[in-house]
Amino acid sequence: MSVTVVGSIAFDAVKTPFGERERMLGGSAVHFALSASFFDDVRVVGPVGDDFGEAEYAVLRGRGVDTSDIEHVEGGKTFFWAGEYEYNLNVRRTLDTQLNVFGDFEPKLSAASREADVLFLANIQPDLQRQVREQCEGARFVAMDSMNLWIDIARDSLLETIKTVDCVMLNDDELRMLTKKPSLLAAAHDVMALGPRVVVAKQGEYGAALITEDGFFSLPAYPLETVLDPTGAGDSFAGGFIGYVAAHPGEAPSGQLLRRAMAYGTAIASYNVEEFGTERIQRLERSEIVERVSELQRITHFEDAPIELRA
Amino acid sequence: MSVTVVGSIAFDAVKTPFGERERMLGGSAVHFALSASFFDDVRVVGPVGDDFGEAEYAVLRGRGVDTSDIEHVEGGKTFFWAGEYEYNLNVRRTLDTQLNVFGDFEPKLSAASREADVLFLANIQPDLQRQVREQCEGARFVAMDSMNLWIDIARDSLLETIKTVDCVMLNDDELRMLTKKPSLLAAAHDVMALGPRVVVAKQGEYGAALITEDGFFSLPAYPLETVLDPTGAGDSFAGGFIGYVAAHPGEAPSGQLLRRAMAYGTAIASYNVEEFGTERIQRLERSEIVERVSELQRITHFEDAPIELRA
Repeated sequence: MSVTVVGSIAFDAVKTPFGERERMLGGSAVHFALSASFFDDVRVVGPVGDDFGEAEYAVLRGRGVDTSDIEHVEGGKTFFWAGEYEYNLNVRRTLDTQLNVFGDFEPKLSAASREADVLFLANIQPDLQRQVREQCEGARFVAMDSMNLWIDIARDSLLETIKTVDCVMLNDDELRMLTKKPSLLAAAHDVMALGPRVVVAKQGEYGAALITEDGFFSLPAYPLETVLDPTGAGDSFAGGFIGYVAAHPGEAPSGQLLRRAMAYGTAIASYNVEEFGTERIQRLERSEIVERVSELQRITHFEDAPIELRA
Repeated sequence: MSVTVVGSIAFDAVKTPFGERERMLGGSAVHFALSASFFDDVRVVGPVGDDFGEAEYAVLRGRGVDTSDIEHVEGGKTFFWAGEYEYNLNVRRTLDTQLNVFGDFEPKLSAASREADVLFLANIQPDLQRQVREQCEGARFVAMDSMNLWIDIARDSLLETIKTVDCVMLNDDELRMLTKKPSLLAAAHDVMALGPRVVVAKQGEYGAALITEDGFFSLPAYPLETVLDPTGAGDSFAGGFIGYVAAHPGEAPSGQLLRRAMAYGTAIASYNVEEFGTERIQRLERSEIVERVSELQRITHFEDAPIELRA
């Protein structure tokens, strides 16, 4: 089967306390696609400008990603984002955002992209997300991301989009902001009341939580001595999570399947942050993913034992 | 065997978005003792004033806590803390701290308290912690808490105290602040280089992480729809964790034992925050603790399954 992702294809300038890159391949659709490519066929939908060349296409094609729905806008410039992280890498500042070709983007999906079994609407304007959603009527599992900006300035449209998907993936702060509920669990239940059966709360260095009708599941991030650049971690996580679901067309996306999907997403995201941008994922080996999934099992496992508590 | 705890015995004034209490029983030693009392004999060491009466003693004795080392300072007033939580309960402001009888406190332990099998040095001035530590030479497991204030103004003394204990329990931000390492794992390893074999990083609503020579273990907080008052959650956690260790005198404090201890601490802390102060813990039942430990197992468990990843 196959996964279609719509989202940003970008050049990023990133500065962290541990180094910087003035211009590197980035964007939500790129991080997602590289990660999902370990599981299934992936098609990327999004616009690029004249500055997006063979070197960039080669990164995606090197992992077997189908780039035929990447729209090249003649005379245009690719989306650009610049950001800086504090010593506490959980805190980041956006220094510059240049929409460029993304400003006039109207997603037009090829027949192949429209026939996706699984669809991921990465963080773009929610009207655009809904346009893509409507072109992929037959998808059996549709997930979406968003951000605080859209909760602020396009809340109604965002709620409309949420009603059309199976799975909402947001940072836990965004879930609280969207629902005005301080409890993550209460916030997730409010989102589920709109339609989605699955809510994933991304929690940065603390990992991620999964809320479904089967209950609550929590998985920590893989512990690392050194994190160089968190950019794209959330999208790498989403790529692993959604890719895992896509690779199991015969199984309902629930229960243990989604828990395993969380683990594969978490494993890939942990490699993403070890180096800048897509550098580490470009040379990631399958065996490395499997190894960290096993490690995640080990670091979360405990056995209970009978104990006589005191009255 | 038995647990001795030294720490604050207090009256707290707490305001959260969901209610307030103008004066209620609190303090690190109190929250710790009530929690640890489900596992072992507990002795509390700390000063109180004339305003600490039979009603307050009755709460501790009601759970079998030995209060004979609570020092009543004639003419004195009990330690008082006032704080306010934001809508995001992770953010709190201290409105008032009145040391009162704690200002001149010099811990003098009875023979019974000195012979403790397990010792917990709750968050007090690190010189005082060391004085208590030196009086309990025979303790087989000694754990300590601290706070950002002591890292700021008594760093050298704090480091001296850390060298004398088996286990350091701090918020993850405090671990970073103490070691100047942004990675939690690196920070924990720096602390272990000073002597302690066990580091517990408290992560508030995200749970807690355990770092030992056996490796890393992470456990989320028990998910709740409603949290009324987080005050004392860390000390309730510590009480369950340390109490569990104390209740197993024949087993080395490592491996699966400490992981189970994390689960019991997490379970009790989750009840602590459901109501104000000690209100919920005062009527907590043993079966409720066991139930949430089982739930914690369920919400963290996933089974891996073979998958053919793509090259």
